[in-house]
Amino acid sequence: MEEQPHPYVPRDLKLPDYVPVLLPQSTILSVYGISSLVVVSLVWILSGRLSKTAKIDRILMCWWAFTGLTHVILEGYFAFSPEFYKEKTPFYLAEVWKEYSKGDSRYAARDAGIVSVEGLTAVLEGPASLLAVYAIATKKSYSYILQFAISLGQLYGTAVYFITAFLEGDNFAASPYYYYAYYIAANASWVVIPSIISIRCWKKICAAFEAQGQKKTKTR
Amino acid sequence: MEEQPHPYVPRDLKLPDYVPVLLPQSTILSVYGISSLVVVSLVWILSGRLSKTAKIDRILMCWWAFTGLTHVILEGYFAFSPEFYKEKTPFYLAEVWKEYSKGDSRYAARDAGIVSVEGLTAVLEGPASLLAVYAIATKKSYSYILQFAISLGQLYGTAVYFITAFLEGDNFAASPYYYYAYYIAANASWVVIPSIISIRCWKKICAAFEAQGQKKTKTR
Repeated sequence: MEEQPHPYVPRDLKLPDYVPVLLPQSTILSVYGISSLVVVSLVWILSGRLSKTAKIDRILMCWWAFTGLTHVILEGYFAFSPEFYKEKTPFYLAEVWKEYSKGDSRYAARDAGIVSVEGLTAVLEGPASLLAVYAIATKKSYSYILQFAISLGQLYGTAVYFITAFLEGDNFAASPYYYYAYYIAANASWVVIPSIISIRCWKKICAAFEAQGQKKTKTR
Repeated sequence: MEEQPHPYVPRDLKLPDYVPVLLPQSTILSVYGISSLVVVSLVWILSGRLSKTAKIDRILMCWWAFTGLTHVILEGYFAFSPEFYKEKTPFYLAEVWKEYSKGDSRYAARDAGIVSVEGLTAVLEGPASLLAVYAIATKKSYSYILQFAISLGQLYGTAVYFITAFLEGDNFAASPYYYYAYYIAANASWVVIPSIISIRCWKKICAAFEAQGQKKTKTR
Protein backbone atom coordinates (compact mmCIF):
# COMPACT_ATOMS: atom_id res chain seq x y z
CA MET A 1 0.00 0.00 0.00
CA GLU A 2 1.40 3.39 -0.95
CA GLU A 3 1.61 5.84 1.93
CA GLN A 4 0.46 9.43 1.47
CA PRO A 5 2.78 12.06 2.92
CA HIS A 6 1.31 13.72 6.03
CA PRO A 7 2.57 16.65 8.13
CA TYR A 8 2.31 14.87 11.49
CA VAL A 9 4.86 13.65 14.02
CA PRO A 10 5.98 10.91 14.61
CA ARG A 11 6.94 10.73 10.93
CA ASP A 12 6.50 6.95 10.81
CA LEU A 13 2.77 7.24 11.64
CA LYS A 14 0.82 5.33 8.98
CA LEU A 15 -2.21 7.18 7.59
CA PRO A 16 -3.26 5.47 4.35
CA ASP A 17 -5.41 7.65 2.06
CA TYR A 18 -4.58 10.79 4.02
CA VAL A 19 -5.89 13.96 2.34
CA PRO A 20 -4.06 17.18 3.32
CA VAL A 21 -5.80 20.08 5.07
CA LEU A 22 -7.67 22.04 2.39
CA LEU A 23 -8.68 25.22 4.24
CA PRO A 24 -6.09 27.77 5.42
CA GLN A 25 -5.36 27.85 9.16
CA SER A 26 -6.76 31.41 9.39
CA THR A 27 -10.13 30.23 8.01
CA ILE A 28 -10.33 27.24 10.35
CA LEU A 29 -9.51 29.33 13.41
CA SER A 30 -11.69 32.31 12.48
CA VAL A 31 -14.78 30.17 11.79
CA TYR A 32 -14.40 28.70 15.30
CA GLY A 33 -13.61 32.09 16.80
CA ILE A 34 -16.49 33.92 15.12
CA SER A 35 -19.07 31.17 15.79
CA SER A 36 -18.03 31.10 19.43
CA LEU A 37 -18.31 34.89 19.63
CA VAL A 38 -21.81 34.73 18.14
CA VAL A 39 -22.88 32.04 20.64
CA VAL A 40 -21.41 33.93 23.59
CA SER A 41 -22.97 37.23 22.47
CA LEU A 42 -26.40 35.66 21.96
CA VAL A 43 -26.34 33.99 25.39
CA TRP A 44 -25.11 37.22 26.99
CA ILE A 45 -27.90 39.27 25.39
CA LEU A 46 -30.67 36.74 26.04
CA SER A 47 -29.56 36.12 29.63
CA GLY A 48 -29.76 39.89 30.22
CA ARG A 49 -33.54 39.58 29.91
CA LEU A 50 -33.74 37.09 32.76
CA SER A 51 -34.89 38.61 36.02
CA LYS A 52 -32.43 38.71 38.92
CA THR A 53 -29.59 36.92 37.17
CA ALA A 54 -26.19 38.00 38.45
CA LYS A 55 -23.43 38.92 35.99
CA ILE A 56 -21.35 35.97 37.14
CA ASP A 57 -24.21 33.61 36.27
CA ARG A 58 -24.56 35.20 32.84
CA ILE A 59 -20.83 34.74 32.23
CA LEU A 60 -21.14 31.11 33.33
CA MET A 61 -24.07 30.59 30.93
CA CYS A 62 -21.88 31.92 28.10
CA TRP A 63 -19.10 29.49 29.07
CA TRP A 64 -21.43 26.50 29.31
CA ALA A 65 -23.03 27.28 25.94
CA PHE A 66 -19.60 27.70 24.31
CA THR A 67 -18.01 24.61 25.87
CA GLY A 68 -21.17 22.51 25.42
CA LEU A 69 -21.39 23.24 21.69
CA THR A 70 -17.64 22.63 21.31
CA HIS A 71 -18.03 19.25 23.03
CA VAL A 72 -21.12 18.18 21.10
CA ILE A 73 -20.24 19.45 17.62
CA LEU A 74 -16.44 19.48 17.32
CA GLU A 75 -15.54 16.67 19.71
CA GLY A 76 -18.69 14.70 18.85
CA TYR A 77 -17.67 14.70 15.18
CA PHE A 78 -14.16 13.53 16.07
CA ALA A 79 -15.29 10.77 18.42
CA PHE A 80 -17.48 9.14 15.78
CA SER A 81 -15.43 9.85 12.62
CA PRO A 82 -12.43 7.53 12.63
CA GLU A 83 -11.65 8.37 9.01
CA PHE A 84 -11.78 12.18 9.16
CA TYR A 85 -8.23 12.45 7.78
CA LYS A 86 -9.37 10.81 4.53
CA GLU A 87 -12.04 13.49 3.91
CA LYS A 88 -11.62 14.74 0.34
CA THR A 89 -13.90 17.82 0.55
CA PRO A 90 -13.06 20.85 2.71
CA PHE A 91 -15.68 19.73 5.28
CA TYR A 92 -15.12 22.08 8.20
CA LEU A 93 -15.21 19.57 11.08
CA ALA A 94 -12.73 17.26 9.35
CA GLU A 95 -10.49 20.24 8.59
CA VAL A 96 -10.45 21.22 12.28
CA TRP A 97 -9.11 17.83 13.33
CA LYS A 98 -6.67 17.54 10.44
CA GLU A 99 -5.29 20.91 11.53
CA TYR A 100 -5.36 20.14 15.27
CA SER A 101 -3.53 16.85 14.69
CA LYS A 102 -0.46 18.99 13.89
CA GLY A 103 -0.41 19.77 17.61
CA ASP A 104 -1.29 16.21 18.65
CA SER A 105 -1.05 13.46 16.05
CA ARG A 106 -2.79 11.01 18.39
CA TYR A 107 -6.05 12.42 16.97
CA ALA A 108 -5.24 11.29 13.44
CA ALA A 109 -3.69 8.08 14.83
CA ARG A 110 -6.95 7.27 16.65
CA ASP A 111 -5.27 6.69 20.02
CA ALA A 112 -7.69 4.76 22.25
CA GLY A 113 -7.15 7.07 25.24
CA ILE A 114 -7.96 10.15 23.14
CA VAL A 115 -11.06 8.56 21.60
CA SER A 116 -12.32 7.45 25.04
CA VAL A 117 -11.87 10.89 26.60
CA GLU A 118 -13.34 12.70 23.57
CA GLY A 119 -16.25 10.25 23.43
CA LEU A 120 -17.11 10.76 27.10
CA THR A 121 -16.73 14.52 26.66
CA ALA A 122 -18.98 14.64 23.61
CA VAL A 123 -21.68 12.26 24.82
CA LEU A 124 -21.87 13.12 28.54
CA GLU A 125 -20.25 16.50 29.20
CA GLY A 126 -21.52 18.20 26.04
CA PRO A 127 -25.26 17.76 26.65
CA ALA A 128 -24.69 18.28 30.40
CA SER A 129 -23.04 21.65 29.66
CA LEU A 130 -26.08 22.74 27.65
CA LEU A 131 -28.28 21.57 30.52
CA ALA A 132 -26.16 23.78 32.81
CA VAL A 133 -27.17 26.86 30.75
CA TYR A 134 -30.81 25.97 31.39
CA ALA A 135 -30.17 25.10 35.06
CA ILE A 136 -28.54 28.47 35.74
CA ALA A 137 -31.24 30.37 33.84
CA THR A 138 -34.02 28.67 35.78
CA LYS A 139 -32.11 28.63 39.09
CA LYS A 140 -32.47 24.88 39.58
CA SER A 141 -31.34 23.38 42.88
CA TYR A 142 -29.00 21.07 40.95
CA SER A 143 -27.26 23.96 39.21
CA TYR A 144 -24.04 23.92 41.29
CA ILE A 145 -23.66 20.16 41.56
CA LEU A 146 -24.19 19.84 37.79
CA GLN A 147 -21.56 22.50 37.03
CA PHE A 148 -19.23 20.83 39.52
CA ALA A 149 -19.73 17.41 37.93
CA ILE A 150 -19.03 18.65 34.39
CA SER A 151 -16.00 20.67 35.47
CA LEU A 152 -14.56 17.68 37.28
CA GLY A 153 -15.15 15.53 34.18
CA GLN A 154 -13.36 18.12 32.04
CA LEU A 155 -10.45 18.24 34.48
CA TYR A 156 -10.20 14.43 34.64
CA GLY A 157 -10.31 14.21 30.84
CA THR A 158 -7.63 16.86 30.42
CA ALA A 159 -5.47 15.14 33.06
CA VAL A 160 -5.71 11.79 31.23
CA TYR A 161 -5.03 13.66 27.96
CA PHE A 162 -1.78 15.24 29.19
CA ILE A 163 -0.54 12.31 31.32
CA THR A 164 -0.94 9.74 28.51
CA ALA A 165 1.00 12.02 26.13
CA PHE A 166 3.75 12.44 28.73
CA LEU A 167 3.96 8.66 29.34
CA GLU A 168 4.13 7.98 25.61
CA GLY A 169 7.08 10.33 25.12
CA ASP A 170 5.34 13.66 24.45
CA ASN A 171 6.38 13.61 20.78
CA PHE A 172 3.14 14.19 18.86
CA ALA A 173 3.48 17.79 17.69
CA ALA A 174 4.67 18.74 14.22
CA SER A 175 6.73 21.66 15.62
CA PRO A 176 7.18 23.66 18.85
CA TYR A 177 4.74 26.23 17.41
CA TYR A 178 1.95 23.65 17.10
CA TYR A 179 2.92 22.13 20.46
CA TYR A 180 2.42 25.43 22.31
CA ALA A 181 -0.38 26.92 20.19
CA TYR A 182 -2.60 23.82 19.86
CA TYR A 183 -1.57 21.23 22.43
CA ILE A 184 -0.87 23.61 25.33
CA ALA A 185 -2.72 26.90 24.70
CA ALA A 186 -5.93 25.49 23.19
CA ASN A 187 -6.34 23.09 26.12
CA ALA A 188 -5.35 25.55 28.84
CA SER A 189 -8.88 27.01 29.08
CA TRP A 190 -10.18 23.54 29.96
CA VAL A 191 -7.79 23.39 32.89
CA VAL A 192 -8.14 26.94 34.23
CA ILE A 193 -11.91 27.54 33.84
CA PRO A 194 -13.14 24.16 35.19
CA SER A 195 -10.74 24.58 38.14
CA ILE A 196 -12.22 27.99 38.99
CA ILE A 197 -15.80 26.75 38.53
CA SER A 198 -15.32 23.61 40.60
CA ILE A 199 -13.75 25.57 43.48
CA ARG A 200 -16.64 28.05 43.35
CA CYS A 201 -19.26 25.26 43.32
CA TRP A 202 -17.48 23.44 46.16
CA LYS A 203 -17.66 26.61 48.28
CA LYS A 204 -21.33 27.27 47.41
CA ILE A 205 -22.26 23.69 48.29
CA CYS A 206 -20.38 23.79 51.60
CA ALA A 207 -22.09 27.11 52.41
CA ALA A 208 -25.51 25.54 51.73
CA PHE A 209 -24.76 22.74 54.22
CA GLU A 210 -23.39 25.19 56.77
CA ALA A 211 -26.59 27.23 56.49
CA GLN A 212 -28.61 24.02 56.91
CA GLY A 213 -26.50 23.04 59.93
CA GLN A 214 -27.05 26.43 61.59
CA LYS A 215 -30.77 26.18 60.95
CA LYS A 216 -30.86 22.73 62.61
CA THR A 217 -28.86 24.01 65.61
CA LYS A 218 -31.27 26.94 66.00
CA THR A 219 -34.39 24.76 65.91
CA ARG A 220 -32.98 22.37 68.53
CA MET B 1 17.06 -10.89 23.47
CA GLU B 2 15.50 -14.09 24.72
CA GLU B 3 11.83 -13.74 25.68
CA GLN B 4 10.58 -15.33 28.88
CA PRO B 5 7.30 -17.23 28.52
CA HIS B 6 4.40 -15.39 30.20
CA PRO B 7 0.76 -16.40 30.69
CA TYR B 8 -0.74 -13.20 29.26
CA VAL B 9 -2.77 -12.42 26.15
CA PRO B 10 -2.01 -11.19 23.50
CA ARG B 11 0.63 -13.91 23.25
CA ASP B 12 3.01 -11.68 21.26
CA LEU B 13 3.29 -9.21 24.17
CA LYS B 14 6.99 -8.71 24.91
CA LEU B 15 7.91 -8.85 28.60
CA PRO B 16 11.67 -9.33 28.87
CA ASP B 17 12.85 -10.71 32.23
CA TYR B 18 9.32 -11.69 33.24
CA VAL B 19 9.23 -13.71 36.47
CA PRO B 20 6.09 -15.90 36.91
CA VAL B 21 3.63 -15.42 39.76
CA LEU B 22 5.14 -17.09 42.83
CA LEU B 23 2.21 -17.14 45.29
CA PRO B 24 -0.89 -19.27 44.69
CA GLN B 25 -4.03 -17.42 43.56
CA SER B 26 -5.80 -18.42 46.80
CA THR B 27 -3.09 -16.73 48.89
CA ILE B 28 -3.16 -13.52 46.83
CA LEU B 29 -6.94 -13.26 47.00
CA SER B 30 -7.26 -14.22 50.66
CA VAL B 31 -4.62 -11.72 51.82
CA TYR B 32 -6.61 -8.96 50.07
CA GLY B 33 -9.93 -10.34 51.33
CA ILE B 34 -8.82 -10.75 54.94
CA SER B 35 -7.02 -7.37 55.12
CA SER B 36 -10.10 -5.68 53.69
CA LEU B 37 -12.30 -7.46 56.22
CA VAL B 38 -10.02 -6.32 59.06
CA VAL B 39 -10.12 -2.69 57.83
CA VAL B 40 -13.91 -2.73 57.38
CA SER B 41 -14.45 -4.35 60.83
CA LEU B 42 -12.17 -1.86 62.55
CA VAL B 43 -13.88 1.14 60.94
CA TRP B 44 -17.29 -0.33 61.72
CA ILE B 45 -16.41 -0.87 65.41
CA LEU B 46 -14.67 2.48 65.88
CA SER B 47 -17.42 4.42 64.07
CA GLY B 48 -19.94 2.82 66.45
CA ARG B 49 -18.41 4.93 69.23
CA LEU B 50 -19.18 8.18 67.39
CA SER B 51 -22.20 10.00 68.70
CA LYS B 52 -25.20 10.39 66.38
CA THR B 53 -23.68 8.65 63.38
CA ALA B 54 -26.27 6.91 61.22
CA LYS B 55 -25.71 3.33 60.06
CA ILE B 56 -25.54 4.47 56.44
CA ASP B 57 -22.69 6.85 57.32
CA ARG B 58 -20.84 4.07 59.14
CA ILE B 59 -21.20 1.82 56.07
CA LEU B 60 -19.90 4.66 53.89
CA MET B 61 -16.91 5.13 56.19
CA CYS B 62 -16.12 1.42 55.77
CA TRP B 63 -16.31 1.76 51.99
CA TRP B 64 -14.10 4.87 51.89
CA ALA B 65 -11.48 3.26 54.15
CA PHE B 66 -11.47 0.09 52.02
CA THR B 67 -11.40 1.85 48.64
CA GLY B 68 -8.93 4.50 49.86
CA LEU B 69 -6.41 1.93 51.08
CA THR B 70 -6.87 -0.10 47.87
CA HIS B 71 -6.17 3.04 45.81
CA VAL B 72 -3.16 4.18 47.83
CA ILE B 73 -1.46 0.83 48.50
CA LEU B 74 -2.36 -1.52 45.62
CA GLU B 75 -2.88 0.99 42.81
CA GLY B 76 -0.18 3.32 44.18
CA TYR B 77 2.35 0.48 43.98
CA PHE B 78 1.30 -0.33 40.40
CA ALA B 79 1.38 3.28 39.19
CA PHE B 80 4.98 3.79 40.28
CA SER B 81 6.42 0.29 39.66
CA PRO B 82 6.84 -0.13 35.90
CA GLU B 83 8.92 -3.29 36.38
CA PHE B 84 6.69 -5.19 38.81
CA TYR B 85 6.55 -8.20 36.49
CA LYS B 86 10.34 -8.67 36.86
CA GLU B 87 10.08 -9.00 40.66
CA LYS B 88 12.01 -12.13 41.68
CA THR B 89 10.77 -12.39 45.29
CA PRO B 90 7.14 -13.20 46.19
CA PHE B 91 6.57 -9.53 47.10
CA TYR B 92 2.83 -9.31 47.66
CA LEU B 93 2.05 -6.12 45.72
CA ALA B 94 3.96 -7.32 42.66
CA GLU B 95 2.20 -10.70 42.90
CA VAL B 96 -1.21 -8.98 42.89
CA TRP B 97 -0.50 -7.23 39.61
CA LYS B 98 1.19 -10.24 37.99
CA GLU B 99 -1.96 -12.19 38.85
CA TYR B 100 -4.41 -9.42 37.83
CA SER B 101 -2.63 -9.02 34.47
CA LYS B 102 -4.12 -12.42 33.55
CA GLY B 103 -7.45 -10.59 33.40
CA ASP B 104 -5.99 -7.49 31.71
CA SER B 105 -2.49 -7.71 30.27
CA ARG B 106 -2.39 -3.95 29.71
CA TYR B 107 -1.15 -3.75 33.32
CA ALA B 108 1.97 -5.76 32.56
CA ALA B 109 2.26 -4.03 29.16
CA ARG B 110 2.27 -0.63 30.90
CA ASP B 111 -0.49 0.83 28.70
CA ALA B 112 -0.41 4.63 29.03
CA GLY B 113 -4.17 4.90 29.56
CA ILE B 114 -4.06 2.38 32.42
CA VAL B 115 -1.06 4.05 34.07
CA SER B 116 -2.72 7.50 33.80
CA VAL B 117 -5.99 6.33 35.33
CA GLU B 118 -4.25 4.30 38.06
CA GLY B 119 -1.89 7.19 38.80
CA LEU B 120 -4.78 9.66 39.20
CA THR B 121 -6.68 7.12 41.31
CA ALA B 122 -3.72 6.44 43.60
CA VAL B 123 -2.53 10.03 44.01
CA LEU B 124 -5.82 11.95 44.11
CA GLU B 125 -8.72 9.60 44.83
CA GLY B 126 -6.86 7.44 47.36
CA PRO B 127 -5.98 10.17 49.88
CA ALA B 128 -9.34 11.88 49.16
CA SER B 129 -11.16 8.64 50.10
CA LEU B 130 -9.34 8.51 53.44
CA LEU B 131 -10.25 12.19 53.94
CA ALA B 132 -13.88 11.19 53.31
CA VAL B 133 -13.75 8.81 56.31
CA TYR B 134 -12.66 11.75 58.47
CA ALA B 135 -15.19 14.12 56.85
CA ILE B 136 -18.11 11.78 57.57
CA ALA B 137 -16.91 11.09 61.13
CA THR B 138 -16.63 14.80 61.92
CA LYS B 139 -19.72 15.80 59.89
CA LYS B 140 -17.88 18.34 57.76
CA SER B 141 -19.92 20.57 55.46
CA TYR B 142 -17.78 19.32 52.53
CA SER B 143 -18.59 15.67 53.24
CA TYR B 144 -21.13 15.16 50.41
CA ILE B 145 -19.31 17.16 47.75
CA LEU B 146 -16.07 15.32 48.56
CA GLN B 147 -17.76 11.91 48.31
CA PHE B 148 -19.42 13.02 45.06
CA ALA B 149 -16.10 14.21 43.60
CA ILE B 150 -14.28 10.95 44.41
CA SER B 151 -17.16 8.78 43.13
CA LEU B 152 -17.26 10.73 39.88
CA GLY B 153 -13.50 10.32 39.51
CA GLN B 154 -13.84 6.58 40.08
CA LEU B 155 -16.64 6.36 37.50
CA TYR B 156 -14.69 8.41 34.94
CA GLY B 157 -11.60 6.25 35.49
CA THR B 158 -13.57 3.02 35.13
CA ALA B 159 -15.25 4.37 31.98
CA VAL B 160 -11.88 5.20 30.38
CA TYR B 161 -10.63 1.78 31.53
CA PHE B 162 -13.41 -0.17 29.82
CA ILE B 163 -13.75 2.05 26.71
CA THR B 164 -10.02 1.96 25.88
CA ALA B 165 -10.05 -1.87 26.17
CA PHE B 166 -13.09 -2.05 23.90
CA LEU B 167 -11.50 0.29 21.32
CA GLU B 168 -8.29 -1.75 21.36
CA GLY B 169 -10.10 -5.02 20.61
CA ASP B 170 -10.95 -6.29 24.12
CA ASN B 171 -8.40 -9.08 23.88
CA PHE B 172 -6.29 -8.76 27.01
CA ALA B 173 -7.52 -11.64 29.18
CA ALA B 174 -5.73 -14.99 29.40
CA SER B 175 -9.08 -16.87 29.39
CA PRO B 176 -12.83 -16.24 29.77
CA TYR B 177 -12.44 -17.16 33.47
CA TYR B 178 -9.93 -14.36 34.06
CA TYR B 179 -11.97 -12.00 31.85
CA TYR B 180 -15.09 -12.37 33.96
CA ALA B 181 -13.48 -12.92 37.39
CA TYR B 182 -10.82 -10.18 37.22
CA TYR B 183 -11.66 -7.74 34.42
CA ILE B 184 -15.44 -7.66 34.90
CA ALA B 185 -16.27 -8.80 38.47
CA ALA B 186 -13.36 -7.15 40.29
CA ASN B 187 -14.15 -3.79 38.67
CA ALA B 188 -17.93 -4.00 38.99
CA SER B 189 -17.90 -2.67 42.58
CA TRP B 190 -16.24 0.52 41.31
CA VAL B 191 -19.11 1.06 38.90
CA VAL B 192 -22.04 0.13 41.15
CA ILE B 193 -20.97 1.70 44.47
CA PRO B 194 -19.74 5.07 43.13
CA SER B 195 -22.96 5.31 41.08
CA ILE B 196 -25.12 4.81 44.18
CA ILE B 197 -23.01 7.23 46.25
CA SER B 198 -22.97 9.96 43.61
CA ILE B 199 -26.76 9.77 43.16
CA ARG B 200 -27.21 9.97 46.95
CA CYS B 201 -24.84 12.96 47.23
CA TRP B 202 -26.52 14.70 44.28
CA LYS B 203 -29.90 14.39 46.05
CA LYS B 204 -28.52 15.55 49.41
CA ILE B 205 -26.90 18.60 47.79
CA CYS B 206 -30.07 19.51 45.87
CA ALA B 207 -32.06 19.16 49.10
CA ALA B 208 -29.65 21.53 50.87
CA PHE B 209 -30.19 24.18 48.17
CA GLU B 210 -33.95 23.65 48.23
CA ALA B 211 -33.94 24.17 52.00
CA GLN B 212 -31.85 27.31 51.52
CA GLY B 213 -34.25 28.55 48.81
CA GLN B 214 -37.29 28.03 51.07
CA LYS B 215 -35.51 29.86 53.89
CA LYS B 216 -34.80 32.80 51.58
CA THR B 217 -38.42 32.86 50.40
CA LYS B 218 -39.63 32.85 54.01
CA THR B 219 -37.36 35.71 55.08
CA ARG B 220 -38.50 37.86 52.16
